[in-house]
Amino acid sequence: MSHGLLKGKKGIIFGALDANSIAWKAAEKCHEEGAEFILTNAPVALRMGELNGLAEKTGSEVVGADATSMEDLSNLFDRAIEKFGKIDFILHSIGMSVNVRKGKHYTDLDYNFLTKGWDISAVSFHKVMKTAWDKDAVNEWGSILALTYIAAQRTFPDYSDMADNKAYLESITRSFGYYWGTERNVRVNTISQSPTATTAGQGVKGFGGFMKFADEISPLGNATAEDCANYIVAMFSDLTKRVTMQNLYNDGGYNNTGISQKVADRFQ
Amino acid sequence: MSHGLLKGKKGIIFGALDANSIAWKAAEKCHEEGAEFILTNAPVALRMGELNGLAEKTGSEVVGADATSMEDLSNLFDRAIEKFGKIDFILHSIGMSVNVRKGKHYTDLDYNFLTKGWDISAVSFHKVMKTAWDKDAVNEWGSILALTYIAAQRTFPDYSDMADNKAYLESITRSFGYYWGTERNVRVNTISQSPTATTAGQGVKGFGGFMKFADEISPLGNATAEDCANYIVAMFSDLTKRVTMQNLYNDGGYNNTGISQKVADRFQ
Amino acid sequence: MSHGLLKGKKGIIFGALDANSIAWKAAEKCHEEGAEFILTNAPVALRMGELNGLAEKTGSEVVGADATSMEDLSNLFDRAIEKFGKIDFILHSIGMSVNVRKGKHYTDLDYNFLTKGWDISAVSFHKVMKTAWDKDAVNEWGSILALTYIAAQRTFPDYSDMADNKAYLESITRSFGYYWGTERNVRVNTISQSPTATTAGQGVKGFGGFMKFADEISPLGNATAEDCANYIVAMFSDLTKRVTMQNLYNDGGYNNTGISQKVADRFQ
Amino acid sequence: MSHGLLKGKKGIIFGALDANSIAWKAAEKCHEEGAEFILTNAPVALRMGELNGLAEKTGSEVVGADATSMEDLSNLFDRAIEKFGKIDFILHSIGMSVNVRKGKHYTDLDYNFLTKGWDISAVSFHKVMKTAWDKDAVNEWGSILALTYIAAQRTFPDYSDMADNKAYLESITRSFGYYWGTERNVRVNTISQSPTATTAGQGVKGFGGFMKFADEISPLGNATAEDCANYIVAMFSDLTKRVTMQNLYNDGGYNNTGISQKVADRFQ
Repeated sequence: MSHGLLKGKKGIIFGALDANSIAWKAAEKCHEEGAEFILTNAPVALRMGELNGLAEKTGSEVVGADATSMEDLSNLFDRAIEKFGKIDFILHSIGMSVNVRKGKHYTDLDYNFLTKGWDISAVSFHKVMKTAWDKDAVNEWGSILALTYIAAQRTFPDYSDMADNKAYLESITRSFGYYWGTERNVRVNTISQSPTATTAGQGVKGFGGFMKFADEISPLGNATAEDCANYIVAMFSDLTKRVTMQNLYNDGGYNNTGISQKVADRFQ
Repeated sequence: MSHGLLKGKKGIIFGALDANSIAWKAAEKCHEEGAEFILTNAPVALRMGELNGLAEKTGSEVVGADATSMEDLSNLFDRAIEKFGKIDFILHSIGMSVNVRKGKHYTDLDYNFLTKGWDISAVSFHKVMKTAWDKDAVNEWGSILALTYIAAQRTFPDYSDMADNKAYLESITRSFGYYWGTERNVRVNTISQSPTATTAGQGVKGFGGFMKFADEISPLGNATAEDCANYIVAMFSDLTKRVTMQNLYNDGGYNNTGISQKVADRFQ
Repeated sequence: MSHGLLKGKKGIIFGALDANSIAWKAAEKCHEEGAEFILTNAPVALRMGELNGLAEKTGSEVVGADATSMEDLSNLFDRAIEKFGKIDFILHSIGMSVNVRKGKHYTDLDYNFLTKGWDISAVSFHKVMKTAWDKDAVNEWGSILALTYIAAQRTFPDYSDMADNKAYLESITRSFGYYWGTERNVRVNTISQSPTATTAGQGVKGFGGFMKFADEISPLGNATAEDCANYIVAMFSDLTKRVTMQNLYNDGGYNNTGISQKVADRFQ
Repeated sequence: MSHGLLKGKKGIIFGALDANSIAWKAAEKCHEEGAEFILTNAPVALRMGELNGLAEKTGSEVVGADATSMEDLSNLFDRAIEKFGKIDFILHSIGMSVNVRKGKHYTDLDYNFLTKGWDISAVSFHKVMKTAWDKDAVNEWGSILALTYIAAQRTFPDYSDMADNKAYLESITRSFGYYWGTERNVRVNTISQSPTATTAGQGVKGFGGFMKFADEISPLGNATAEDCANYIVAMFSDLTKRVTMQNLYNDGGYNNTGISQKVADRFQ
């Protein structure tokens, strides 16, 4: 059920991979609510070809860009400006730890892998915003969002160096958000989402057990990708204009629940 | 510009006093977005008579209730159920410190005043929720909200025992929110709003200087009562169904800004 | 092994009941480190008579005082001043929920019980500090401490309204701490302790299962009463003079651990 | 006045540069309290030659090591093990932003500078701990500490990318702290210190004004380098054995004070 909440708004959505992606659901919802946008992902992800289906469904254009490459980002934003003029929203849904992928334990990190994962997962957010900043590409009261995870606050062993990347990402949100706010009247926030069975998420070791634990703790259960897409719409809409530099939990109450009866019962 | 975001939703709004009240603006916005509701305030506040204007404008009914009286609350919810069946949202915008009003310093609190202010400002939220709980008055995926202030986290001397009341209120949000989530699929949150020039706010000593300080720190400036009303709409809508037990800052980035250039310049 | 860390320091210790009490261990440790103090508890607790043993062992005097009675507190501080002159530290280890004791569920609180528990568990800390403040009873760089629990931040269902009391207590710590700091150069903090098998703690429903859960999550395991006593000594010593208005976790890392391998294994 | 609190404890102290350094004061205090340690800093810092004076005064050895070089760190720890056997404490007091030094604004960061600053200020802490971990160099109940700053939580514009580095550093503290706790019974924490007039600190633009602001907000005033050294002693001592994965504010109450009367008076 659409309300036309994003009618007239233009944006860029990073990181949709397949129908399990949060960014994919977000694109569908934003389209439903009247937004227009460019879909982008790394060339290697585009080669899978699934994104074209989403583009067709949402009347979007796909522009490949490696989010760690200032040149790619420059081309991407040039295309967005050419197409839309200034834009109103950006969604950053990008993250990958080479160490996790290669099975390097946190106490035995490879520092080249570390640097690469940090660049992809965290610094890319600064690069995206710097590109947008330099090109003055975002309208006043625009909204920039990145997705994060509570491992930035509390340790989940299998999440490894992604936790540190997310902490860095959330810090960029505040640091750059200060300037976006002060000089451009634009807001920058992160949504800290429940563990979600995306293609990426499912690759993390022990993911299934952890999802169950989170679901049993959370009074409203784990938030789904669709719940997240809805929250993203709210954050892109004009209903949240003065909310900035925040980390917003969309997790069914997980983060403020110490223990639930269900979990407690397992320890009797 | 309405989007019909709250079409079909029914609720109760506590605490609108006059056109400066956040609850007043919230009522106007909720009405604009298609909601129906009962307006309520303490009998002494109703005697001012201004609320009838808002009721007329929004097609609402006014029902007097002292939010510390279980009997009044029972009557209020009975009337709501009679009128609407189950409801979908509740806004709690109630707060008052007798010690502040009587000029008692924080180091010299009167403990009877303290108890009374705590009952009005904090326990009333539990009483409202207990009444709704006992009467099973809230639909699944309903949304309960209270307004709070960052003094619950950091000390602002003139805010005195209201800080402690707000800390208690936010704790109730989590404690009761756990049960609303687990057993009823209902969310409970607080919005922590910028200092706002309501009739109540303006009564706090040193309020003007403090508002200026907050505005200079906040990258997006202080959030207004209207901004808050918009955020309330987002929190009552179906866009935020899995957000619960949270304290959500609507403050232009104030809470995550240590110092701004503007404020720093005053200390050179 | 004593280091004479508190040599020459005088204080008041509230809340030792029996050898399982944190305050009991704290008294032993403070004595070991050279401090002198008065032991106090409610008349009903004194009737058990165990406290006399501790008093003898630590060369202390026992003075009965109901910590909710301004008159009792006044007499207590008068006696302390008579004996010691100004004092250097205060330990507040007091808490009790009548609702929990009477088995009233959080969704069905009795509001008279609520008020009584709040007065005992939280307001008493203000009353103690107000009494000390009015009598100018604390030396510069003195240290005031209360014990709290993480339920003030996250919900643990069985902890019920004690969670809200602890949130209020921690807020008092900040609110009154501001004045103690600004005008008297005295610090005020809380220690948020692991679940501890005190006589009071063991009375909470589901306590055993919960202790096990906390222990399995915490990388260093649950902090014991003795660990807490040691931390209290550090906070009373001159090593922590500029630490104030803080809530300090002594919990083996529990609060910053999302999940441990041990707990994750239960969800495979 | 020494209490022999660290008698028998051995360690490594990174980052003492001159008599203004926090690490310098920490070394003096640790020596006073009976500890033995190796002093280390980057070869370029050693060339200044001041560290030899401290080494003499504290009966320490100086071993040069670039904390971003695994080879240097390996040699350093080998020397420590040769000298002491296992050690009991490590102090990491290292930080530098190339962007800040070169005057690159946060909205215009150089990404090579960024990577270098991140490696020095944050990743070095992981490298130090990995080296210690691999060599099994730390005794049970040992204590590892790094220094940080509240910019990791809230934006201070002139602090630029150091804020993001500190957020990453604090995340490493939790992530690696989990394993140190679980498998070695060692604690890892950060101290978040008031702005301190070290040689490094004074180089930050607008530092003087900011120090004044912080001092006026903080109820106990800014914590000095000596206060920090004392807190470090407490954290290395056996009084805090179950405190881990924490960020501990040593800042006179700054972080929990919204506004002070002194600052408010400037906004009347």
